[in-house]
Amino acid sequence: MNHFDQDRHSALQAKQEAQRIAFGPFVFQASKALRDLGVLRAIEAAGDDGLALEEIVERVGLSTYAVRVLAEAGLGIGSLVLKQDRFVLSKLGWYLLNDPMTQVNMDFTHDVNYKGLFHLQESLVEGRPAGLKEIAPGSRTVYEALATLPGHIRESWFRFDHYYSDNSFQSVLPLIFSEPVASILDVGANTGKWAIACANHAPDVRVTMCDLPGQLAQARVHVDARGFGDRVAEHPIDILRPELPLPGGHDVIWMSQFLDCFSEDEIVMVLEKAARVMTPRTRLYIMETYWDRQRFENAAFCLQQTSLYFTCIANGNSQMYHSSVLHRCIERAGLAVAEEVDGVGISHTVTKVVKRQQDAACAA
Amino acid sequence: MNHFDQDRHSALQAKQEAQRIAFGPFVFQASKALRDLGVLRAIEAAGDDGLALEEIVERVGLSTYAVRVLAEAGLGIGSLVLKQDRFVLSKLGWYLLNDPMTQVNMDFTHDVNYKGLFHLQESLVEGRPAGLKEIAPGSRTVYEALATLPGHIRESWFRFDHYYSDNSFQSVLPLIFSEPVASILDVGANTGKWAIACANHAPDVRVTMCDLPGQLAQARVHVDARGFGDRVAEHPIDILRPELPLPGGHDVIWMSQFLDCFSEDEIVMVLEKAARVMTPRTRLYIMETYWDRQRFENAAFCLQQTSLYFTCIANGNSQMYHSSVLHRCIERAGLAVAEEVDGVGISHTVTKVVKRQQDAACAA
Repeated sequence: MNHFDQDRHSALQAKQEAQRIAFGPFVFQASKALRDLGVLRAIEAAGDDGLALEEIVERVGLSTYAVRVLAEAGLGIGSLVLKQDRFVLSKLGWYLLNDPMTQVNMDFTHDVNYKGLFHLQESLVEGRPAGLKEIAPGSRTVYEALATLPGHIRESWFRFDHYYSDNSFQSVLPLIFSEPVASILDVGANTGKWAIACANHAPDVRVTMCDLPGQLAQARVHVDARGFGDRVAEHPIDILRPELPLPGGHDVIWMSQFLDCFSEDEIVMVLEKAARVMTPRTRLYIMETYWDRQRFENAAFCLQQTSLYFTCIANGNSQMYHSSVLHRCIERAGLAVAEEVDGVGISHTVTKVVKRQQDAACAA
Repeated sequence: MNHFDQDRHSALQAKQEAQRIAFGPFVFQASKALRDLGVLRAIEAAGDDGLALEEIVERVGLSTYAVRVLAEAGLGIGSLVLKQDRFVLSKLGWYLLNDPMTQVNMDFTHDVNYKGLFHLQESLVEGRPAGLKEIAPGSRTVYEALATLPGHIRESWFRFDHYYSDNSFQSVLPLIFSEPVASILDVGANTGKWAIACANHAPDVRVTMCDLPGQLAQARVHVDARGFGDRVAEHPIDILRPELPLPGGHDVIWMSQFLDCFSEDEIVMVLEKAARVMTPRTRLYIMETYWDRQRFENAAFCLQQTSLYFTCIANGNSQMYHSSVLHRCIERAGLAVAEEVDGVGISHTVTKVVKRQQDAACAA
């Protein structure tokens, strides 16, 4: 799907949009302040009548000056409307205040990315996440720093990560379990959410979680708390160390929002590790968000911008990929796409991958 | 003029715009990187044919990965268009690359404001420019730090400051000199641009520049370089010290983009200082940019966002005002508006202020 084959602005609109971009960091921080300092909430509560400036001041306990610069910024941003000297919440203001996706995106941008994005050009030129030092000095990737990030930053990271995958898990479980599944290898187990979802969905299935040791320790706590400890095993692994194999013997290998954390060459290496333990019957399911597979342009936009989080903060070399890049990696690893379903959950694609026919024949 | 009395979005548009805001810092930094790293320029040079990804890589000397994440971000932003796998510059891309106003705004945002805006909420709550420490640690206001800011930051500050006033000077000179003027008091002389413009415009006029000593030293260099040293005098003053008067005896007092640097109470104090040295014949001209006097909504938008620069970086208590606020200050200082002209230069209003009739009568 190409949402991007047309110039969408007139010359006048383009000039206006250029200024909105040039002042984008102002717009972002003003919008967040309007939300966090209670201004939008107070105005929402006043309904269609809205509030005069001094009425907002009384309700939020800031100075007249502070409320005035914020509320006036809100007019230009479009989150507030001014009717007979009274500020009224617009639809945009409502979304900034109440929409969970907007909240998750905004907090992720501010807490995890804002400071680091200042170093975007350095990251691009040097091929390393030069912005990471702003939240995790001394770390090479965000993944090794995750467990020790300051609480509010870690929370914004996980809320962003989970917001997009949680909705997809329920839709994808019937797909995975449409064939008999005795055991699943969960590569990139994260907090154990997928392992728990599987154990909950199928009373007999066994899951092996693969991840870095620190991450597995956290996942273990969640799994045990849900009472699935006896059916969920662990396999600690630094997947990027070429000499460390994946464990074999599973019917299904699962990689959800995992491969986007790696460069193309690394993805091929990970897929080759999977290929080495796959039989002709093994199904590898890859769940990813591809910007070219989005029904809505806005979803593609969010993914394209999120790529720069990988550039600047996460690892310096991965992204939210175009599906053709992943397909090329699958091919290079000696695997083949058997089936692909778009539109899973909010924005996911699930790809069922198997050994290539001739390779499978050789192994048999 | 109220550009802001209507909700401008449908629900769907509002949700989309909310995500553009939530990812605004990504959009800003990606746009700046696309500009600064030569990607937009290379694509522009290819005209309507555009460039394939690998062709951009060859031309700009970045990795395929770096060009890909940037160019794909550009698609969502709308600065690039994708036609048959070739990237083409859009009108928005053209403005981001070539429009001087966009360049000035973007550099001002990045160099002066970006890091500091992280501290916007702190600034609003505490009434001080909490973001200033990011570019001038230890300074209370940006004005006292101006002369010692790092070169590229100072340059972006002055380019922003001058971009908007330079065009206005030529339009406003005939207005000021429509009556006989022997001497002008230039309050807030900045780099001496106005003094030079006046000396250049009227061969006999004498100008007294008022500003902080450090600023006057720089202004003096510029004035002397233009050969106007004998007609331009100096009066060093920290205008915020209540006990320090302005010098008297001038036909015209000039304050250009000066009062927006102060809080309402401070503005009244400054205007009272002017009032004390004004006779019934003295004209005080105030040139300011008021967001409510803009013909174009986009100009109002830029001013409303710029207010947050004052909140967060400059001094913590001033802004780009609504004209009614300035009018109230003029009234409180015992002065009166005699005449007002909107639409001067890019976005200025010139207000001719005189002593109020009864006050003038008392003084006479």
